[in-house]
Amino acid sequence: MRFEVWAPNARQVELVLRNERIEMARDERGRWSVDATQARPGDYYGFCIDEDDPLPDPRSPWQPLGVHGLSRVLDHSAFAWTDAEWRGVAPPGDLVYEMHVGTFTEQGTFDAAAAKLDHLVDLGVGAVEIMPVAEFPGDRGWGYDGVDLYSPHHSYGGPDGFKRFVDACHGRGLGVILDVVYNHLGPDGNYLGRYGPYFSDKYSTLWGDAANLDGPGSDDVRSFFIDNAVGWLEHYHCDGLRLDAVHAIFDQSAVHFLEELSARVDELKNRLGRTLFLVAESDLNDPRVVTPREAGGYGINAAWSDDFHHALHALLTGDLSGYYADFGAVSQVAQALGSVYVYDGSYSGHRGRRHGRPVGDLPGTRFFGYLQTHDQVGNRALGERSSHLMSQELLKVGAALVLTAPFVPLLFQGEEWGASTPFCYFTDHSDPQLAHAVSEGRRRELASFGWDPAAVPDPQDPETFNMSKLNWSELDEPLHAELLAWHRDLIALRRAQPALHDGRRDLVEVRFDEESRWLVMERGPITVACNFSAGVASIPLDAGRSARVLLTSVEPPEVRAASVELGPESVTIFSAEA
Amino acid sequence: MRFEVWAPNARQVELVLRNERIEMARDERGRWSVDATQARPGDYYGFCIDEDDPLPDPRSPWQPLGVHGLSRVLDHSAFAWTDAEWRGVAPPGDLVYEMHVGTFTEQGTFDAAAAKLDHLVDLGVGAVEIMPVAEFPGDRGWGYDGVDLYSPHHSYGGPDGFKRFVDACHGRGLGVILDVVYNHLGPDGNYLGRYGPYFSDKYSTLWGDAANLDGPGSDDVRSFFIDNAVGWLEHYHCDGLRLDAVHAIFDQSAVHFLEELSARVDELKNRLGRTLFLVAESDLNDPRVVTPREAGGYGINAAWSDDFHHALHALLTGDLSGYYADFGAVSQVAQALGSVYVYDGSYSGHRGRRHGRPVGDLPGTRFFGYLQTHDQVGNRALGERSSHLMSQELLKVGAALVLTAPFVPLLFQGEEWGASTPFCYFTDHSDPQLAHAVSEGRRRELASFGWDPAAVPDPQDPETFNMSKLNWSELDEPLHAELLAWHRDLIALRRAQPALHDGRRDLVEVRFDEESRWLVMERGPITVACNFSAGVASIPLDAGRSARVLLTSVEPPEVRAASVELGPESVTIFSAEA
Repeated sequence: MRFEVWAPNARQVELVLRNERIEMARDERGRWSVDATQARPGDYYGFCIDEDDPLPDPRSPWQPLGVHGLSRVLDHSAFAWTDAEWRGVAPPGDLVYEMHVGTFTEQGTFDAAAAKLDHLVDLGVGAVEIMPVAEFPGDRGWGYDGVDLYSPHHSYGGPDGFKRFVDACHGRGLGVILDVVYNHLGPDGNYLGRYGPYFSDKYSTLWGDAANLDGPGSDDVRSFFIDNAVGWLEHYHCDGLRLDAVHAIFDQSAVHFLEELSARVDELKNRLGRTLFLVAESDLNDPRVVTPREAGGYGINAAWSDDFHHALHALLTGDLSGYYADFGAVSQVAQALGSVYVYDGSYSGHRGRRHGRPVGDLPGTRFFGYLQTHDQVGNRALGERSSHLMSQELLKVGAALVLTAPFVPLLFQGEEWGASTPFCYFTDHSDPQLAHAVSEGRRRELASFGWDPAAVPDPQDPETFNMSKLNWSELDEPLHAELLAWHRDLIALRRAQPALHDGRRDLVEVRFDEESRWLVMERGPITVACNFSAGVASIPLDAGRSARVLLTSVEPPEVRAASVELGPESVTIFSAEA
Repeated sequence: MRFEVWAPNARQVELVLRNERIEMARDERGRWSVDATQARPGDYYGFCIDEDDPLPDPRSPWQPLGVHGLSRVLDHSAFAWTDAEWRGVAPPGDLVYEMHVGTFTEQGTFDAAAAKLDHLVDLGVGAVEIMPVAEFPGDRGWGYDGVDLYSPHHSYGGPDGFKRFVDACHGRGLGVILDVVYNHLGPDGNYLGRYGPYFSDKYSTLWGDAANLDGPGSDDVRSFFIDNAVGWLEHYHCDGLRLDAVHAIFDQSAVHFLEELSARVDELKNRLGRTLFLVAESDLNDPRVVTPREAGGYGINAAWSDDFHHALHALLTGDLSGYYADFGAVSQVAQALGSVYVYDGSYSGHRGRRHGRPVGDLPGTRFFGYLQTHDQVGNRALGERSSHLMSQELLKVGAALVLTAPFVPLLFQGEEWGASTPFCYFTDHSDPQLAHAVSEGRRRELASFGWDPAAVPDPQDPETFNMSKLNWSELDEPLHAELLAWHRDLIALRRAQPALHDGRRDLVEVRFDEESRWLVMERGPITVACNFSAGVASIPLDAGRSARVLLTSVEPPEVRAASVELGPESVTIFSAEA
């Protein structure tokens, strides 16, 4: 078995295996390697730099003892996959379901999540998007401070657990998108800096040192991340990756990291003969991210569309705090539906500058649309979901817009039934100083927004994690069951109507009335009429377009020659085809 | 007269004029303004923030007392321009001449430089490129630490002096390109931070805080720079701008600063009805900079091509120190001539990473080619020119390649006659600490490259500036006169032969022999045959291509049926047309 590690500045690197130190040989670029025939899968190992204590492998495939423990040898070829026929999912029109493994079930494991797939299949999900699983500090966490990027978290079930999960998903016709973080690494258990110039002081991110993607040594740092992406797709059979916060991926190279990554994934797609895709979280409102490489873009397949979320959330909740200050108007929901970005070059008060540029004619399938995500729920002081912040009626209107919009719809776990459980921010740092800093930092930040610090759940408290777990028993309760049925009906309608999942933005027409608070979106023969107000709305609509009611959140509305009367906080979907 | 200044965080701003403090009014974006009818051109003024001492205007048009003094009112409409017929110069094929006003003549003024224009016209120059003139600290300097970006330096002759110079150039058919620095400001006399968030801590540059082009308040910072560019083109009638070190212009916005700038300059071009252009210094080897905006680029008209310089310099001098370590082969000169970038994705040892990407089919006129610039000369310990580092024969070969390459050729002042004067790094900081830091920093840096610190001229010593002035009397000396004639002949040939100035890279063919050290470049009917070696080279060349000798640096070479015999260190230019 061959062991390799990049440590360009080390004078000496030794492999530690079965309590033995084995000298490694350096090549001209600082990559150290050795063949150790005695190594067996399951063996613990590490690397010693310049005779120091052993460290985990930066590319460790398995960290059963956590981020500070030794790495463990893994043989990827040993897993018995049953998905040989799987060819992937095509993202256009598909429904994506964001899942946090630790809170999706009581047990918080891959295996327990796999046991719940019936629910997702019944709902009509196309792919699950898994919040980061790469080994992060402790037993509980969102995963964005992972440090062993190649190693599925020990508390979720480790490498084999994740493979079983993906295999089970494929068996049920579900794709798997994995959330990966390439903009920074967590502070705890991060030994990469000991190995080489993984980080840059040229740029600063909110969360720590930026990755070194364009300085000396950056070829190997880029490979570290790109090989990681390839590994999840190849060894774990993932169908796609969600790239966290690409606006914090700083790279001045002539070939941007994201462009190199998308090209590598396209090569892999051809080699593996199945659909693969990349979706980016980006707050740049820059269409370059999802523009094809041939047209000067980075070739990422899709991006999360926060402007649509913010516009919809602010309108439905009236919450204008923080970044929602830039939103709140019906016109902005209309703008998002028609033009994707609400800020496409206009002045954003929250940002204190002009923001974004027009998306042009990129199809709607290049954007994910949602009313809730882990971030939008979990970054609130109390982890409140939309269901805690608006009426059941408006929840239905919101769901209808998400599921009829020209985007790829995304639901956050439990959203489909308006789960009563919150999704809080939780951590499990063992370093007492860091643990204290995280708890205090959270309190202070939220206190500065006017929250009572005593009311803010402590991220380090195991109870904060436990109360964030879904309560599946509430699915039997009438209001939850009703909301779930509403989601199922919408998803089934979306599937049945090509006009709803073709992503054609050129066929989208949106009208609205800011004062009366209604909005009508036409997509080909389909008309989605929303009344956000507490009163009845009379919405101008040609009888030809309201020939048939496909779905309504209230009693079927009164249809007149040139208008419909829509009940308070309601939505009705019409077809022009009788 | 209206006074305006942006100071978003100030509680109060007053205009100080004629020893009077006049309160200014704030608009919602933090721009303060007042009408002061008593103001007259020539009046000194400044702004007081929150009752502090008066500061110069960030947009001061005139700083006769230097960077720390008050600003002075200027009426741009008062100048009597005589260039109404001027329509600009078209950069393709033109010869650009880089000039430092302070050392071009003994007097070091715009007026003295204007008196030397005959020399440039006789040489065949198309446009002069003026090193930065924006007010910088003291009386002597290169200009890259300017702080009053709207104000031509007092020691060169101030605003009117610069206008007279541009007007004189236009009168002689010469265009004027001005070097501007938008990536940072100098440390001394930089009061911008007192006015607003002009700088960013998100990025770091080698020379100081990066400009805030994408953070809160950045709209006004972008306007500050873009209005500056427009001002030089509109009020000073400049024909173009050279953008210093755009690789240090950090901007994550969806519309990059350079793209916004080029769009504004294109609008201005249409409004003014004359040719304007932008040339960037960029070490990114990224064709996006000079790709049209419609194709996803930034729309800058041309870029300095350092790879061509480095390849040619290292080959002709054998100097492989510093960044020249990446160069030195004949093949690299061939690559630069054929493909522009030597590093177009390959590994650069000096940078410790892969670098660049292919330029594709961009025309050669999008790149400036040169053997010398202020940087390549002045950043050497002793400010040595190429003429100090290679034989007269190789100087001729280098000049021939620069002047027949498919790029826009650029000469550095005095290069045309192999000036014996150096061009050193010089400064005139009044702050003793800064002055000491500059002197010591320069010594230490060069000592680390093995130079004797005692031999390195002190940048603060006026003698370092004085010895960098051109010595025009040496033009009468035979060797200098011979080199000048050689440049004139090459320039005349370039002008006369469309194949040499059409910038068509698709018609360029380059062959070479690394061992025998010769290189042949064909451009349509023209063949440029170079022998870099100290011996005679037998170069395969079809008799059809060597029908006529257009120019040779030696005795006309022996032409055979399928080869030519080229003397040591020589170049001959053939035409296929007899």
